[in-house]
Amino acid sequence: MEILRTISEVKAAVRPRKRAGARVGLVPTMGYLHEGHLSLVRRARQETDLVVVSIFVNPLQFGPREDYDRYPRDLDRDAALLAPEGVDIVFAPSVEEMYPEPIRTFVEVTGLTEGLCGASRPGHFRGVTTVVTKLFNIVEPDVAYFGEKDFQQLQVVRRMVRDLNMNVEVVGVPTVREPDGLALSSRNVYLRGREREAARILYRAIQRAQELVAQGQRDARALVEDLTAFIAREPLARVDYVAVVDPETLAPVERIEGRVRLALAVYIGSTRLIDNAELAVDNPELEGAG
Amino acid sequence: MEILRTISEVKAAVRPRKRAGARVGLVPTMGYLHEGHLSLVRRARQETDLVVVSIFVNPLQFGPREDYDRYPRDLDRDAALLAPEGVDIVFAPSVEEMYPEPIRTFVEVTGLTEGLCGASRPGHFRGVTTVVTKLFNIVEPDVAYFGEKDFQQLQVVRRMVRDLNMNVEVVGVPTVREPDGLALSSRNVYLRGREREAARILYRAIQRAQELVAQGQRDARALVEDLTAFIAREPLARVDYVAVVDPETLAPVERIEGRVRLALAVYIGSTRLIDNAELAVDNPELEGAG
Repeated sequence: MEILRTISEVKAAVRPRKRAGARVGLVPTMGYLHEGHLSLVRRARQETDLVVVSIFVNPLQFGPREDYDRYPRDLDRDAALLAPEGVDIVFAPSVEEMYPEPIRTFVEVTGLTEGLCGASRPGHFRGVTTVVTKLFNIVEPDVAYFGEKDFQQLQVVRRMVRDLNMNVEVVGVPTVREPDGLALSSRNVYLRGREREAARILYRAIQRAQELVAQGQRDARALVEDLTAFIAREPLARVDYVAVVDPETLAPVERIEGRVRLALAVYIGSTRLIDNAELAVDNPELEGAG
Repeated sequence: MEILRTISEVKAAVRPRKRAGARVGLVPTMGYLHEGHLSLVRRARQETDLVVVSIFVNPLQFGPREDYDRYPRDLDRDAALLAPEGVDIVFAPSVEEMYPEPIRTFVEVTGLTEGLCGASRPGHFRGVTTVVTKLFNIVEPDVAYFGEKDFQQLQVVRRMVRDLNMNVEVVGVPTVREPDGLALSSRNVYLRGREREAARILYRAIQRAQELVAQGQRDARALVEDLTAFIAREPLARVDYVAVVDPETLAPVERIEGRVRLALAVYIGSTRLIDNAELAVDNPELEGAG
């Protein structure tokens, strides 16, 4: 496993392999890896010939009052986790390598980025799509792997790729959870004391939503109200948003029918956590029973 | 010479050649070709193995009150001009092929696009950089050729390529002019009667600027004022802008020193024409003589 720091090294390492017919897989990460990231890496290892994992805490996707400075970083730890997975290349550039001059060019997906996380994190998705475009141009992957945990990000990247005819297949990989249901996130390290237990409220809300839908709830607004009240009963939790959206447009839906996505962001203390799940109405006989 | 209408055909035609080592050149155009375009094509033919010319009047770069509908189009004429130049592929997609659904993703270069043509054509450069990104992803050229006549566009595309690590070399090709100095432009066909003669004012202003600089003029504002008054003496002309800018940042300069760019946009009747030229102060002994 090579750990490369510069764009030119990555291009020099990837291009000859790609020209020789290797299928290239990219797993873009911000490091401080957990089993969620490793599930992406394993999928890439299964499906592609050359697996590149990028580790870059991208300042462009953090707001001025966000946690860019304290975001956890530990390249040695990350490398120790990646080596046994058969990763070929770790690309861990410096900020100066990625942004040698103030960047003036931005890739922005409109319509999908104003709601949900975009509402409380203005500029976040612009930062994500811009750095992902850069990474795609540097690595030239055939396939890129993103976690479904960041569902809005996944759908925004999918749309970007389609709109701009990028030559990459985007694969979404299911969320990996702790035994109690908490979605794995590098930000879980921020949770202190009782907060870790309180953080279960996100997955419990998802389970509750799935139960209510199974029982016939089809009114998205009623479901959101129920879940918001449910989360509010946890004293350490503060809802940022609870939404039921179309999985493609990310626009709120009124009726829960077909396949819709429940997405939520909840502050646990000062730590903002997100989670999401499909709310599938698979049995049309249940329709209208709510 | 193949004329291809779909993205998949272009990818199928270019990729095997590129994988086999061919250097791919792209000349993006809006068609209704003239000798300026052909000079780009000849340069591409000299420097690359597979020459692709795209012909696409891109609605995204036209404002609502601009000339998208009446922009001249004649693919048969264009094909007849390109075939003798040894072009390999003409990519002439429909609007539906390029925008099968409403596009939500935009590539935008900030800082370089607000002034000059960007001031009177809001959204124009966003449309240009977005479609150029799409064309780059579709054709995957090693080199792309742009005319210096659209100097701001050239510099905006260069910056985009650098900022986003796009794998293409951008080559600027000098402006081709009519014998009387008028820069070739597909929009010159709009000029009626006396307007054609009046359009000479753009190049005459450039020549005047170069003379004044040769005589020692170093004050950009004084030069702009002189040229604005000079152009105003032509009754059919109305100045949109006259500017002396840094060729990289496109920001106005105060002093004419080193290499700066004179750029101008002038309405001749209802036709908006642009032109530009370097104002080089090559002889440091002249410094301060103005």
